[in-house]
Amino acid sequence: MKNSGDSTVIDVPPTAASSKKKAVVSTAAPGQASGGVKRGLSIFDFVLRLGALGAALGAAAAMGTSDETLPFFTQFFQFEASYDDLPTFQFFLIAMGIVAGYLALSLPFSIVCIVRPRAVGLRLLLLILDTVVLTLATSAAAAAAAIVYLAHDGNTSTNWLAICDQFDDFCQKVSGAVIGAFIAALLMMFLVLLSAFGIRNTH
Amino acid sequence: MKNSGDSTVIDVPPTAASSKKKAVVSTAAPGQASGGVKRGLSIFDFVLRLGALGAALGAAAAMGTSDETLPFFTQFFQFEASYDDLPTFQFFLIAMGIVAGYLALSLPFSIVCIVRPRAVGLRLLLLILDTVVLTLATSAAAAAAAIVYLAHDGNTSTNWLAICDQFDDFCQKVSGAVIGAFIAALLMMFLVLLSAFGIRNTH
Repeated sequence: MKNSGDSTVIDVPPTAASSKKKAVVSTAAPGQASGGVKRGLSIFDFVLRLGALGAALGAAAAMGTSDETLPFFTQFFQFEASYDDLPTFQFFLIAMGIVAGYLALSLPFSIVCIVRPRAVGLRLLLLILDTVVLTLATSAAAAAAAIVYLAHDGNTSTNWLAICDQFDDFCQKVSGAVIGAFIAALLMMFLVLLSAFGIRNTH
Repeated sequence: MKNSGDSTVIDVPPTAASSKKKAVVSTAAPGQASGGVKRGLSIFDFVLRLGALGAALGAAAAMGTSDETLPFFTQFFQFEASYDDLPTFQFFLIAMGIVAGYLALSLPFSIVCIVRPRAVGLRLLLLILDTVVLTLATSAAAAAAAIVYLAHDGNTSTNWLAICDQFDDFCQKVSGAVIGAFIAALLMMFLVLLSAFGIRNTH
């Protein structure tokens, strides 16, 4: 302040430089934090995807192996229950296969999202496909659940009798498959919400 | 170019001013365009929401009024089919009621999104609730579809007979309700994807 114009000129550059450095530091810090949050979300996304894949595969396997032959038979036919007796269970198996296949194929893209947290287009693509596959998984699980409920309890109004008294193993396996499918659907719902948060944070 | 330094000084200010004006215009234009896109998305969101509300209300109404009494009766009881004979249809009616109620309540918030295109928190809240309600609508539609299929075709393996031969009107109403529910679910899937795009564009 008390110096001449020349010394003022000498003073100014370091001040400007330090303020510049501060500015760089202050802009870098939120960027890194945001990148870290995004990476964390992507890793969580990968873990959820892996869990949903396991649940969907388990559901498909339980449904696919669910046939039971009763130990007694008449002269004309054996009593046997299998998933392909009911079209809803066939749909369930196909849908769970598609869901598991999609989840397995989407794992590499999820890894790309971890490595490159700013790939917004990829996240958006995953979000769209996740939403469609979530709907498929939910509908398969709900339709199978409706039939499993009928198999357990029957319905007196329509005269549909419960078949679980005879085919106990079959019913247990099918019920397990439905529970697995609902777990997969729940995990995929979280996946969709997580993707939305991930896209929201990208700016 | 051929002028002296004095005339150059006179030339500079207007150039700077005009470039400033241009800069202001060029920064304002994308902002307005982005706001316009967001407002367009919000209006489309409102229309989709209205459509889904109509479909859900129609589905609930068709299911709620679906009872049929056959014109003949025995000494002991009348033959009557109603949605509350089947627990799946009761679940369908309750779920569609919740979906329609949520969609009606979310309409004002959708209007807020049109008026204030930058309300990201509100969009995120709507996206989360939309995803949850989408899952509810899908599961109700799929479960009812499984039962309707059974009512139409029956199943020989489990000895469940088709009831639509007798209760034709009942089956038609219930089938219409299921179709309405699937339309509502489809519109809500588009709602979720639209919300994701809307959030993506906010930066």
